[in-house]
Amino acid sequence: MAVYTDVSFEDLESFLESYDLGEPRVFKGIAEGVSNSNYFLQTETGAYILTLYEMRVEAADLPFYLALMEHLACSEIQCPTPVHARNGEVTGLLNGRPAAILTFLDGVSLRRPTAEHCQAAGRALAALHEAGASFKGRRANALGPQGWRTLADDCAQKADTVGDGMRALIEEELASLTAAWPATLPQGIIHADLFPDNVLFVNDRLSGIIDFYFACNDALAYDLAVMLNAWCFETDGAFNLTKGRALFAGYQTMRKLNLAERAAFPLLCRGAALRFLLTRLYDWINHNPIALVRPKDPREFARRLRFHKGVKQPEAYGL
Amino acid sequence: MAVYTDVSFEDLESFLESYDLGEPRVFKGIAEGVSNSNYFLQTETGAYILTLYEMRVEAADLPFYLALMEHLACSEIQCPTPVHARNGEVTGLLNGRPAAILTFLDGVSLRRPTAEHCQAAGRALAALHEAGASFKGRRANALGPQGWRTLADDCAQKADTVGDGMRALIEEELASLTAAWPATLPQGIIHADLFPDNVLFVNDRLSGIIDFYFACNDALAYDLAVMLNAWCFETDGAFNLTKGRALFAGYQTMRKLNLAERAAFPLLCRGAALRFLLTRLYDWINHNPIALVRPKDPREFARRLRFHKGVKQPEAYGL
Repeated sequence: MAVYTDVSFEDLESFLESYDLGEPRVFKGIAEGVSNSNYFLQTETGAYILTLYEMRVEAADLPFYLALMEHLACSEIQCPTPVHARNGEVTGLLNGRPAAILTFLDGVSLRRPTAEHCQAAGRALAALHEAGASFKGRRANALGPQGWRTLADDCAQKADTVGDGMRALIEEELASLTAAWPATLPQGIIHADLFPDNVLFVNDRLSGIIDFYFACNDALAYDLAVMLNAWCFETDGAFNLTKGRALFAGYQTMRKLNLAERAAFPLLCRGAALRFLLTRLYDWINHNPIALVRPKDPREFARRLRFHKGVKQPEAYGL
Repeated sequence: MAVYTDVSFEDLESFLESYDLGEPRVFKGIAEGVSNSNYFLQTETGAYILTLYEMRVEAADLPFYLALMEHLACSEIQCPTPVHARNGEVTGLLNGRPAAILTFLDGVSLRRPTAEHCQAAGRALAALHEAGASFKGRRANALGPQGWRTLADDCAQKADTVGDGMRALIEEELASLTAAWPATLPQGIIHADLFPDNVLFVNDRLSGIIDFYFACNDALAYDLAVMLNAWCFETDGAFNLTKGRALFAGYQTMRKLNLAERAAFPLLCRGAALRFLLTRLYDWINHNPIALVRPKDPREFARRLRFHKGVKQPEAYGL
């Protein structure tokens, strides 16, 4: 949670000269976003987010993310949409960083979503998958099995200092998941990071989906497996079957999973747990103490991964 | 710039049960405030700031600050005003911290204010002094000459590692300022920290004054000396006489300085420069590298202090 690149009001004013957004009324750095610097901006014409893309978001991928958000917003998905500058561009350079202005969505993210929220979020994911089908852009999932291998190698030496048996757990899982990873499930645009932080609600009504900076092409059901990991476990580590059922029910009102997707679901859940275990472990081990972000505990996902290893049938998730 | 205490939406929801503010629509931690955690909150009824008071703001002083803001807002000073809970209280406990909800003011703070902005800000300071005259609360200035002595002692050992001759400069100034510090100038409520960060503008019109957590009773002209230090120097260290003139002109449209205040002005400027030199030096020396706040450079105020030492007459400032 940080603002990495400082933007003065005067910097903002020059940047806004290329846009038709009117006079700024509010401009505040917000303590949100692990990889980017984000500012809340209100002008005569509305509310926006100004994002400066720091190193972790590869500049080459920016056009993909921004075009995707624009495509989804045009397809009535409630998500931020980039504002075009007068010259038509959706990015500019601000204090040495690529920067974009996106529309701001009202809503708050929940720390402890209920089953009803899970259902609404599941439905929104299916709507996103449907709307993504007509999107032309493509981006490979950098955090699929190949990416896991690289992260696992980088973390191998120190993994056991973070949790007992961590290294062995990762190696075993990597070996069996890589061997069995399904290649023929229905593919499409996935959000790939739809945690409760990235879903907004107003008055318990879903009002938006944000943070598309991991979006890519991959198996649609994998996206739902990410959500199951992120939405359906209690803070004590217990799996909440009611929330699982609600998530699937919401999703399947819009898009039915086929038999292959159902059968692969336990495996996809293990893969999703491993993916977040590995990125958190990497950030934990390589955490710079003077950084402005506190790393998240990787062990949470080691527990979830162990839970999934014990699951034999999709029914155990409520599917 | 940080959020020290994490507040989930659910924490907020329970806290809001004591208020009549309606349903929350936006809730974001903002990267602002060195001592407190601040959240931007928008509900059905308007925009607010939720502040959690961390250690640096003494809980015993909170009623003074909040009552002062309420008094000033009632006297048509544009400043945040605390929202009363249903039981009449203006503070509550949130995640172990005293917390208050204040009205949010539109406006942006300027990094490089012009002479016109200085004039508007000077006028607003005089209006604040006038409105403060009828306020009954009292709080001594903890960062007056006695406070400087304590800070200087704490920093003495390491002062010269920050800047050449820093320790000697501080000791000499402390000795001469303490001996000559005026005790009979007109007193009242002062803001004591009216830097450009704390003054908001919309479309070049002053829209608000914020951050009253150093406010206290002291010499009114000292408050203007703080502003001269904060508003009238260029980034290269040069004093901008045009801005000085504008600041005084703005102030004196509402409140004329008397002869004693004019005569004391160079001394007050030295005191104000020393006060910010010392607090910055203390924060610089005692900076915890894992803290979320980057300390400000104390040497800026050493340069200003040396400039003031060379000033013999208030005319040199444009007064």
